Amino acid sequence: MGYSQIALDISEGIATLTLNRPEKMNAFTGTMMNEIIDAMDRTDADDAVRAVIFTGAGDRAFCAGADLTPEDGRAVFASGDPVEDLSDPRVRDGGGLLTLRLYHSKKPLISACNGAAVGVGITMQLPMDIRLASENARYGFVFARRGIVPEACSSWFLPRLVGVSQALEWCMTGRIFDAQEALRGGLVRSVHPQGELLDAARGLAREIADNTSAVSVAMTRAMLWRNPSGDHPMAAHKVDSRAIYRLSKGVDAKEGVQSFLEKRPPAFPGRVSADMPDFYPWWGEEPPYA
Amino acid sequence: MGYSQIALDISEGIATLTLNRPEKMNAFTGTMMNEIIDAMDRTDADDAVRAVIFTGAGDRAFCAGADLTPEDGRAVFASGDPVEDLSDPRVRDGGGLLTLRLYHSKKPLISACNGAAVGVGITMQLPMDIRLASENARYGFVFARRGIVPEACSSWFLPRLVGVSQALEWCMTGRIFDAQEALRGGLVRSVHPQGELLDAARGLAREIADNTSAVSVAMTRAMLWRNPSGDHPMAAHKVDSRAIYRLSKGVDAKEGVQSFLEKRPPAFPGRVSADMPDFYPWWGEEPPYA
Amino acid sequence: MGYSQIALDISEGIATLTLNRPEKMNAFTGTMMNEIIDAMDRTDADDAVRAVIFTGAGDRAFCAGADLTPEDGRAVFASGDPVEDLSDPRVRDGGGLLTLRLYHSKKPLISACNGAAVGVGITMQLPMDIRLASENARYGFVFARRGIVPEACSSWFLPRLVGVSQALEWCMTGRIFDAQEALRGGLVRSVHPQGELLDAARGLAREIADNTSAVSVAMTRAMLWRNPSGDHPMAAHKVDSRAIYRLSKGVDAKEGVQSFLEKRPPAFPGRVSADMPDFYPWWGEEPPYA
Repeated sequence: MGYSQIALDISEGIATLTLNRPEKMNAFTGTMMNEIIDAMDRTDADDAVRAVIFTGAGDRAFCAGADLTPEDGRAVFASGDPVEDLSDPRVRDGGGLLTLRLYHSKKPLISACNGAAVGVGITMQLPMDIRLASENARYGFVFARRGIVPEACSSWFLPRLVGVSQALEWCMTGRIFDAQEALRGGLVRSVHPQGELLDAARGLAREIADNTSAVSVAMTRAMLWRNPSGDHPMAAHKVDSRAIYRLSKGVDAKEGVQSFLEKRPPAFPGRVSADMPDFYPWWGEEPPYA
Repeated sequence: MGYSQIALDISEGIATLTLNRPEKMNAFTGTMMNEIIDAMDRTDADDAVRAVIFTGAGDRAFCAGADLTPEDGRAVFASGDPVEDLSDPRVRDGGGLLTLRLYHSKKPLISACNGAAVGVGITMQLPMDIRLASENARYGFVFARRGIVPEACSSWFLPRLVGVSQALEWCMTGRIFDAQEALRGGLVRSVHPQGELLDAARGLAREIADNTSAVSVAMTRAMLWRNPSGDHPMAAHKVDSRAIYRLSKGVDAKEGVQSFLEKRPPAFPGRVSADMPDFYPWWGEEPPYA
Repeated sequence: MGYSQIALDISEGIATLTLNRPEKMNAFTGTMMNEIIDAMDRTDADDAVRAVIFTGAGDRAFCAGADLTPEDGRAVFASGDPVEDLSDPRVRDGGGLLTLRLYHSKKPLISACNGAAVGVGITMQLPMDIRLASENARYGFVFARRGIVPEACSSWFLPRLVGVSQALEWCMTGRIFDAQEALRGGLVRSVHPQGELLDAARGLAREIADNTSAVSVAMTRAMLWRNPSGDHPMAAHKVDSRAIYRLSKGVDAKEGVQSFLEKRPPAFPGRVSADMPDFYPWWGEEPPYA
């Protein structure tokens, strides 16, 4: 599809996005950022895609972090003259531009972490919905060891995933840790032999694709990420009352109940591109992210 | 007490609310919703009640979800003519009306999940304070398999209980899972043999009833559910400073310190109906929920 | 350093603050509160201090709670004439004055809980970043057993650390529980034999001190505690974009990258007293807490 640093494969309803610079341990660049964002626009728009799996090329790395070499690394940071005014739009962290786009995905995102995931290599996985690791996986929130800070909105995502104390320990020590520590700390949901990692990720993607309504899943994703921070469950009640009201009269609810009563697999006709409820998105226009 | 789809038993300071349609796997209806809400009004008003245990009649189900059969299921959804304006008060999810009422309970709520808990059968348990399961328990956030979305404010409750990633996996796959998966995922605090489930729940209720001040527990429940979402601990400091100030001069603090020094069980005189601190509720008037 | 109820030792970049009333099980008083706050002002101002370890003198207690005896306990509560107006500044919980100050620490806080930690003895540990326990540790959120409520902003801190259900169970029962239950519930990150507790805490402090930038760690601490409650990751993106922009051009980032490329331990020149980015603190002036 014309990408140079990632590969995007779509088959049987599942997209697999591979970070594809194995000779550089799939290090992150501005080009890679733009290609992933472009791929998200495609998977969101393509009704045939029911889930997206992220992995890295090779057995060594998912993504070893930002590429800091002169030839490849420039685009990661704002370029040009030094900026004094921090509200200048050029002062935008590239990792954050990426994670904000992932946050807005309409399709479930599953990471299959096949090796080293350091710096932005792990922070880019945080807005994904489900994280799997192989025994080769290694993680590091190494920012304090490089004299900078956690980026890519990880100060928002990480404490929600693993609790604030575990987040603080990993970010304050900057240590490299293995898949078992990631599992104990709640960063990943399971650890697999290297050769079985992608099959495990595909199994979860299939479970979603074969059994659920795409519209329901897109709504569920938006509701669960957005609602927990409100002060009171009433905010959730407003959204879910409207969603239940609209969707329960829709084509997918009809098929959902019918297939259930007939004890057969469902075949939902609803499409994310056309059949989201009329009040979606309910949270108002968001600023452009890239 | 005049209920047709639930049973409410009160003895020795503990109320047991049984969803009581075993021939229908205790499926949820509008009648059941109204009866549970009425029971909550009673347990809140009755100073003799120190905790409420929820369970289902029979060994098969806690609650198999919303009753979708024509004769019983109509009242679950808004009835009458189709509503175009989604701010219409008829567009209110029944599961949410129930969980909002449970959220406002002044007494601790303990679920003893004795079998299948699917759809609203599990989401109604989320605003309960402590969740126990028997080995018979089965859970399913099946909404995406029916073409609808998580209801009953579960997008607010579930990520707070089990983290957003576990919540997303259960809600995006819609899978049915057993008590052990619920335990690993943090949805329940313990799993018990079927015959020991209610005793375990009663043990926790007794631990509360025998050792604590009812006023303290009602305040604690409101403070812990409401405060965590604020941006800064200062909001909590305002509330707990005032509560400590008022209650430390009250009858229960006197008995609490005295019984502690005398190494005897306490006999707290304070009543939730009359002795809550004068600034309760501190969060302002809330809209009516039913 | 002129303290009467605590001891403060600083060596090799690590401060150890010992609650030091072993004959009273290190019970909390107004004097102790003021001394801990003063010690925090020192450790924040002293660039040589990279982390602070909290422990209790003796093998019996970390801190047995507020000292309620007439001679020592008065200063814990507001003194003087009864206050009717609850917005009166004298209505301020002493435990909260302390935990708010700990919340604003610029240095990592590590608790080494060596014995009983009851009431304010455990709530004062909640704003610490990492909590360790010895096998002697015992915990109790006993407020409901004394006729009062959780204080020291614990309704804000505790659910963020252990989830709202575990927080409710501990606070509603008021039970005393051991180190293993604390570990299972997520209150502490590890349990150690009594004689190895301080070494384990020092090992974590060393891991931070030897490998990271002090400015990065102070920023990380502020970002992770403050950002998770926002509604949207965009709030985090604004802060981390600015921090990455400023710090990536600073002295510590230069040393961080260079030491990494040269495969040697870093020697970061940045100082918290002088080298925080110009927009720190970004959250506006906070009210005085003591």
